[in-house]
Amino acid sequence: MSELPIADWQTLAASKRKAVYDKIPVQWRLPESLTSKFNETSTISVLDVPSTCGLLTPRELELTSNYDATQLVELMSSGKVKSIEVVTSFCKRAAIAHQCVNCLTEIFFEEAMARARECDEYFAKHGRVIGALHGLPISLKDSFNIKGIHTTIGYVSFLSKPPARTNSNLVNLLYDHGAVFYVKTNLPQAMMTADSHNNVFGRTLNPHNLSMTPGGSTGGEAALLALRGSPLGLATDVAGSCRIPALCCGLTSFKPSAGRVPFGGGVAPGRLGAPSPILPVAGVMGRVVRDVEIVMRTICSADTWAYDEGVLGVGWRGVQPCRRPLRFGLVRGVKERPLHPPIARALHSCATKLTAHGHEIVLLDNKIPDIWASNILAWKFFMLDPRKTALKYIQDGGEPVVPSLGTTMVEELRGWEPSLDELWDMNAERARVVRAWHGVMVGEALDAVVMPGNCTTSVKHDGYGTTPYTVVQNLLNYPSGILPYGKAEEELDRPFFRADAVYEPSYEAKAIEGLPAHVQIMGKSMKDEELMEILKVVEKTLAE
Amino acid sequence: MSELPIADWQTLAASKRKAVYDKIPVQWRLPESLTSKFNETSTISVLDVPSTCGLLTPRELELTSNYDATQLVELMSSGKVKSIEVVTSFCKRAAIAHQCVNCLTEIFFEEAMARARECDEYFAKHGRVIGALHGLPISLKDSFNIKGIHTTIGYVSFLSKPPARTNSNLVNLLYDHGAVFYVKTNLPQAMMTADSHNNVFGRTLNPHNLSMTPGGSTGGEAALLALRGSPLGLATDVAGSCRIPALCCGLTSFKPSAGRVPFGGGVAPGRLGAPSPILPVAGVMGRVVRDVEIVMRTICSADTWAYDEGVLGVGWRGVQPCRRPLRFGLVRGVKERPLHPPIARALHSCATKLTAHGHEIVLLDNKIPDIWASNILAWKFFMLDPRKTALKYIQDGGEPVVPSLGTTMVEELRGWEPSLDELWDMNAERARVVRAWHGVMVGEALDAVVMPGNCTTSVKHDGYGTTPYTVVQNLLNYPSGILPYGKAEEELDRPFFRADAVYEPSYEAKAIEGLPAHVQIMGKSMKDEELMEILKVVEKTLAE
Repeated sequence: MSELPIADWQTLAASKRKAVYDKIPVQWRLPESLTSKFNETSTISVLDVPSTCGLLTPRELELTSNYDATQLVELMSSGKVKSIEVVTSFCKRAAIAHQCVNCLTEIFFEEAMARARECDEYFAKHGRVIGALHGLPISLKDSFNIKGIHTTIGYVSFLSKPPARTNSNLVNLLYDHGAVFYVKTNLPQAMMTADSHNNVFGRTLNPHNLSMTPGGSTGGEAALLALRGSPLGLATDVAGSCRIPALCCGLTSFKPSAGRVPFGGGVAPGRLGAPSPILPVAGVMGRVVRDVEIVMRTICSADTWAYDEGVLGVGWRGVQPCRRPLRFGLVRGVKERPLHPPIARALHSCATKLTAHGHEIVLLDNKIPDIWASNILAWKFFMLDPRKTALKYIQDGGEPVVPSLGTTMVEELRGWEPSLDELWDMNAERARVVRAWHGVMVGEALDAVVMPGNCTTSVKHDGYGTTPYTVVQNLLNYPSGILPYGKAEEELDRPFFRADAVYEPSYEAKAIEGLPAHVQIMGKSMKDEELMEILKVVEKTLAE
Repeated sequence: MSELPIADWQTLAASKRKAVYDKIPVQWRLPESLTSKFNETSTISVLDVPSTCGLLTPRELELTSNYDATQLVELMSSGKVKSIEVVTSFCKRAAIAHQCVNCLTEIFFEEAMARARECDEYFAKHGRVIGALHGLPISLKDSFNIKGIHTTIGYVSFLSKPPARTNSNLVNLLYDHGAVFYVKTNLPQAMMTADSHNNVFGRTLNPHNLSMTPGGSTGGEAALLALRGSPLGLATDVAGSCRIPALCCGLTSFKPSAGRVPFGGGVAPGRLGAPSPILPVAGVMGRVVRDVEIVMRTICSADTWAYDEGVLGVGWRGVQPCRRPLRFGLVRGVKERPLHPPIARALHSCATKLTAHGHEIVLLDNKIPDIWASNILAWKFFMLDPRKTALKYIQDGGEPVVPSLGTTMVEELRGWEPSLDELWDMNAERARVVRAWHGVMVGEALDAVVMPGNCTTSVKHDGYGTTPYTVVQNLLNYPSGILPYGKAEEELDRPFFRADAVYEPSYEAKAIEGLPAHVQIMGKSMKDEELMEILKVVEKTLAE
């Protein structure tokens, strides 16, 4: 990358951003009078911009607002709606979303429309669908490769790379089942912060409140989905990247067990060959559980091993909907990161409702391994590269480190350097943690665990910090889902305020008022199908 | 272990060996006139000793000689034969086998008979079996734990350890399905050579020819099985330990994909927490494929995750028997270890028969990654412990290193020291190897690969050397099976002699005359069920 003039990164980045913006047809652009209000210090919500800006026709608003992904596929599969109509509507709405919250990294509307017509022609000719996702637009994180499209993952030094020559394996699989790709979405520098902010594409804003983070690392996806600029999104997750954005933006997400979903063929933010037991996985983000399920079922029911040498090739098992009362473990917090009132209330309310519906709740507070210690252990695994390759990628581009990158790692590890000898002990320690959790899950006969996905709702940009509540599932390789539930409401939250708690980040009730709250439901390793059914039960219970 | 007088290891070992021998009832002992002939320099076969020594009744000979494990279970499950009869017969025959080839490390006949009576009483009371392995005696490698029994794995320094306080997870599972354990079997020092030789229990001999190795590391099992002192054995395999002994002793064995069979709860020969992508697995050894299958199906059909936190919990899929012609890749050798004539002949004959039966053979010679390089890479992963814990365990006992321990590792790695930095590159290299093999398996639409399990039949003690033909499956995490096929016959083998080949170990036709030959059939990762069906096809084809 030495051919890049070091001082030039701002120009290169500006040029890239302009190139992305230029892919938005002129007639889909918002007036500057509107967009000038959208910035990272503004506290406004932009959720109603798509319906009020006047760019979307009533039909486009209907298609993007009134149906979930499952319904859209049904409409297209029965010939009632054409893919080109659905895809065009979402392209348009995604363009609007981008102008509100800066969520896209690559736009390829023309290719998507050509693909949509291909789907429609196939249907017209054969009288049947290409696959279970026939004609459905799906957005995806920038780190996935799509042939012919750039994959910079926000590194200035990657701007000089040629477009991807091949698709990610997951992209190939979903194409074969009828999916239509049209945009890639923003992510943090090095993909290791909960703020989707990098020097190439800038910062993605939370559509609920622009001064708040949309989460990361799959934050562009979440912001886009919250604005209904996409019906479904593909994420990755090694410490919460599929779940943190979901909980920040009020979405549903599912992080599967490792080896279920093809992960290969994308671009990594660091060195290949990590000797870590924590495997990154691809996950799904959407609005409702059944949408997430349709993608998971489609993927896992395919011959995944034919697409990807790294998967287990385990098919999606047909499990029965839950008919018996379930037993949930309940994790009420980590003392180093006490739950902010809105999250404590959501969790309490969820547990109460589940109990009211006949399910059992088992308090796990003193039964499970220390989650904070697991967070530190997980971060050691993320810091194993003696060459610090991700940092080198940053330096290669002459760009600065983004502010949030230093805040994700735990303080305890400042100055820590990895060694092969300690790595053995880390693995042995992880094995003990896995065994202890397994003992609780089996010993207590738990079906799943109800816990927070974070101690707060979304917070101000660069304020998210470390991620103990989402990384433990990666350390354990347990599947986990986020369900949106309620919102921060100072009045209702007040009884859950603890005067003795040291809230970190600080609890600012007024700032987060109205932001989505959530619960996290963690399943058991490789029992993704069972967790999906449990998520449906909890989703339904919370809605009552 | 500092309380052990260093000079005392010989006494300690002799005492342990005597304690094992003393567990053999006096009336089951062979006369000294016979046993004095059994030593590691004798070239005699002892395969007929059980039937000629006069210790076994006709009924005991019938039960141990005429039925495979599947039939034995059927006989017990239909009430025609009692477990106590079967177990007593195998205890007696195992005792004879031990006196011939020194294959046992722990004997617990009394506990086994009590368990057999328990099975019989259960059947009498409930009119049904405990499980799919009801009343069946199963032998297992010393490294598995059985509550109340010692697990020294042949380290002098482990002699002072208390008996196991818990069962290995696999032992628990098999107990729950009706298995009866009665002996544990010998293995090499550090479990990393193909000679089952250690300073506590001494050396196990090959019953086909006592001067030959039974293989390792699960060599005690193989010697016992070849003498029909057990119907089925449990092995482990990280570089071929379930397959090398099988091919040395003329048995069938199956190394599953990692995560299918519970592995936890045993005793490891080295440090815990290896940061290696090569996972040790538990495998099965027997005489015919259907016996191996009954164990694999029983294990995988159980809720394995309830027993072991390290498994994937993937059930045994019901796959149809193969009805279409299969496509086999064929690996004809590694230039550094050319195939000795009997193995080249077995492989050639196997390929010819498969072709004659309508199956396709695809030569892989120039299509696959270099197997020798993969062997070196795998050995680097085995040498990752900077503390050299296995060597420390040896030194703690004041015992010498056994001769074969230095011969397994490849010469290229002498003096090599691991580093965290190189470990990243090793992982990246492994990923390339896995991807390349995957490309061949998918691209050539292969169902399985026919290849040798070693370049030779069994060889003289301490002559086996390194294991390129069996470690590649561990590196890839592909399941693999050994099928016995024919035997070394100088006359028939002669056309397969290559004057230009540098045979390593040296080819000594007269020395190996009559020893079992074999083929290895490698399947695809996690497609253990498909491989099992393919093994049945090959087994049947070879028998015709």
